[in-house]
Amino acid sequence: MKFSSKIEKCGLSPMRKFHPYAVAAEAKGRKIYHLNIGQPDIETPQAFFDAVKDFKQPVLAYAPSPGVPAYIKAVKDYYAKLGIQLDDGDILATTGGSEALQMVLTCILDDGDNILIPEPFYPNYNTFTRVTGGYIKPIPTKPEEGYHYADRAKIEAAIDEHTRAIMVTNPGNPTGVVLTHEEMRMIADIAKEHDLFIIGDEVYREFVYGGEGLASLAEFPDAAENVIIIDSVSKRFSACGARIGVLISRNKELMAQAMKLCQGRLCSATLDQVGAAALYTVGPEYFAAVRDEYKKRRDTVVAKLKAIPGVVCECPKGAFYLMAALPVDNADTFNKWLLEEFEDHGDTVMFAPGESFYATQGKGKNEIRIAYVLKQADLERAMDLLALGIKAYNARK
Amino acid sequence: MKFSSKIEKCGLSPMRKFHPYAVAAEAKGRKIYHLNIGQPDIETPQAFFDAVKDFKQPVLAYAPSPGVPAYIKAVKDYYAKLGIQLDDGDILATTGGSEALQMVLTCILDDGDNILIPEPFYPNYNTFTRVTGGYIKPIPTKPEEGYHYADRAKIEAAIDEHTRAIMVTNPGNPTGVVLTHEEMRMIADIAKEHDLFIIGDEVYREFVYGGEGLASLAEFPDAAENVIIIDSVSKRFSACGARIGVLISRNKELMAQAMKLCQGRLCSATLDQVGAAALYTVGPEYFAAVRDEYKKRRDTVVAKLKAIPGVVCECPKGAFYLMAALPVDNADTFNKWLLEEFEDHGDTVMFAPGESFYATQGKGKNEIRIAYVLKQADLERAMDLLALGIKAYNARK
Repeated sequence: MKFSSKIEKCGLSPMRKFHPYAVAAEAKGRKIYHLNIGQPDIETPQAFFDAVKDFKQPVLAYAPSPGVPAYIKAVKDYYAKLGIQLDDGDILATTGGSEALQMVLTCILDDGDNILIPEPFYPNYNTFTRVTGGYIKPIPTKPEEGYHYADRAKIEAAIDEHTRAIMVTNPGNPTGVVLTHEEMRMIADIAKEHDLFIIGDEVYREFVYGGEGLASLAEFPDAAENVIIIDSVSKRFSACGARIGVLISRNKELMAQAMKLCQGRLCSATLDQVGAAALYTVGPEYFAAVRDEYKKRRDTVVAKLKAIPGVVCECPKGAFYLMAALPVDNADTFNKWLLEEFEDHGDTVMFAPGESFYATQGKGKNEIRIAYVLKQADLERAMDLLALGIKAYNARK
Repeated sequence: MKFSSKIEKCGLSPMRKFHPYAVAAEAKGRKIYHLNIGQPDIETPQAFFDAVKDFKQPVLAYAPSPGVPAYIKAVKDYYAKLGIQLDDGDILATTGGSEALQMVLTCILDDGDNILIPEPFYPNYNTFTRVTGGYIKPIPTKPEEGYHYADRAKIEAAIDEHTRAIMVTNPGNPTGVVLTHEEMRMIADIAKEHDLFIIGDEVYREFVYGGEGLASLAEFPDAAENVIIIDSVSKRFSACGARIGVLISRNKELMAQAMKLCQGRLCSATLDQVGAAALYTVGPEYFAAVRDEYKKRRDTVVAKLKAIPGVVCECPKGAFYLMAALPVDNADTFNKWLLEEFEDHGDTVMFAPGESFYATQGKGKNEIRIAYVLKQADLERAMDLLALGIKAYNARK
């Protein structure tokens, strides 16, 4: 049987491909400290579960294709508090941020078209892009420059006749890079000047640690036709399993195209949208507490990394990830070795090797992504295990 | 801004496009009897809501990409009762049957490839197919033959070098056609002989009214490499809003390709999978009661239709839809007229016009799809309104 040339170009998730090695390590009795997956350990606000329990309709019916009205309103009110006025028609409820992005790429990419994304980037973007027949053209960055990408010359050099959009994850996964207001403005200007869409994956918006205000590319009304926002309750409220996201744009033609896809798949899950609407009633004290917690964790990870000889790592400003270059030959081999050979008092650690966050062949081989989603004590232990592991790995034979 | 040539070929859902006319009619005080949408009125079994309420984990985390183990087991056990033995790896949990089908078509269709589907067919299949760059090649049927399509010569005549799969909705939406065991065998044989996938959308499996046993194309072990099953809890348990479906195949290469897409979008909703697993604990008395109810409704609709002069309609054997040819010039115009001009004691009725269920230009213009998902008394009134409407429509001017 023949398979599509597009699916043949896709791969398995690099974050999940080490799962079998982890299972084998656990079978041997190892305790694994997971720095590899962005599944927050923060409790989901009770408001979600209460709303789901209060659902009293006897038939769990389809929701409207564009979304449950209470959820659309909750999103609109949340953006209004950021100073961004949206109409109902600017918002489509989606099955996670993932579906929102899949829809956008399906709407804008033809075979051979590309989108510009700073690398390293979230590897699942590859799957969403490749199934459309398009591809990601990377904007290069360097570990020693803290993965900074907001440089006009660098971005414009990557634009070609097949470019349809510039996409940024802000705050960034995997790098934790956060754009300044001026950098956002500059990227919006580039998009306008070159008649490109600009896709902002802003699911980590609340996770900024320098006292910045909450930001969005939707702030620039003059770029309304260009800007597309991907958002989600997954990280904001530690509700990844709800699979409720949102696609936002004031470009009416884009929204009309995306509506075709929304209607095609009928709707996103009804109960989860009801729960997601309730999440938006959570007050600012929730975010303040979560932000404090993650900031402490970031500081722990950075301090521990900087104490390891040979590590290259700048302090990231947001999200709950960072990338670092390690003094090892190959981070992929090192990760497997940690799971198969290494232990310290029965413990080991795993991370996400950096290579698959890059589109450019050969880059990221000695880099890793760390997701700091463990409690303080566990995180310290995990980082100590990493330091011990590097030492032992480089001392082999 | 330029949009993808593939999305430009997609359209809005024909079942939902009359929504604005319905809203306007309701604003005028009309009561509308809805025969247009397949949203069952049967109550969702309490088991779903109980399982959701019993969920006690403090973090609503991602589910495993291939599905929540309890849900995979429930699906496996359900198929085992049909005499079909599946491995865990033959099953992927999906966001509704819709996502399962999107995944399959993404895996098997390249630009210019086609799948054969008997027409009339569920119009959203167009969207799922067109975004891959492929297209639907219809197997023609006729209202006077009860939309029968299981004819070897007819099917083989449609196969060409670009055909990758034969797809059947069995029991059928919109026609209610149910394949006999011999017909299923014959279609499986054609798929094997021509090295094609055969996709069975079997979400209406339980809705058969002639005392037949429950059937699946997965029954033919010799066609294991060819057969792909799309299934869902939506119709089976009146849980459309859960958006939980399943992709089933013993073709390991197909499942490996589909896993890339599963991992890309991370998972289907965790709580809904927990609820869906509980639905499968519902006993046979549930299905017997539901089947009895729908059988009565079908008989009502068919008796009422046959009493209208000039209607062409065979009694369908399954699902909860039927297609009929009406003695009107254009069913689309007639549907709009019912909403804008017609009323009887303040009531009117709407259905899904037939044209958009066809791929062949010009077919189905005087046909309609009726979804018999209303309670007996409402259904009788709806059908009487249809009869009155046809008479008044044809007597205009």
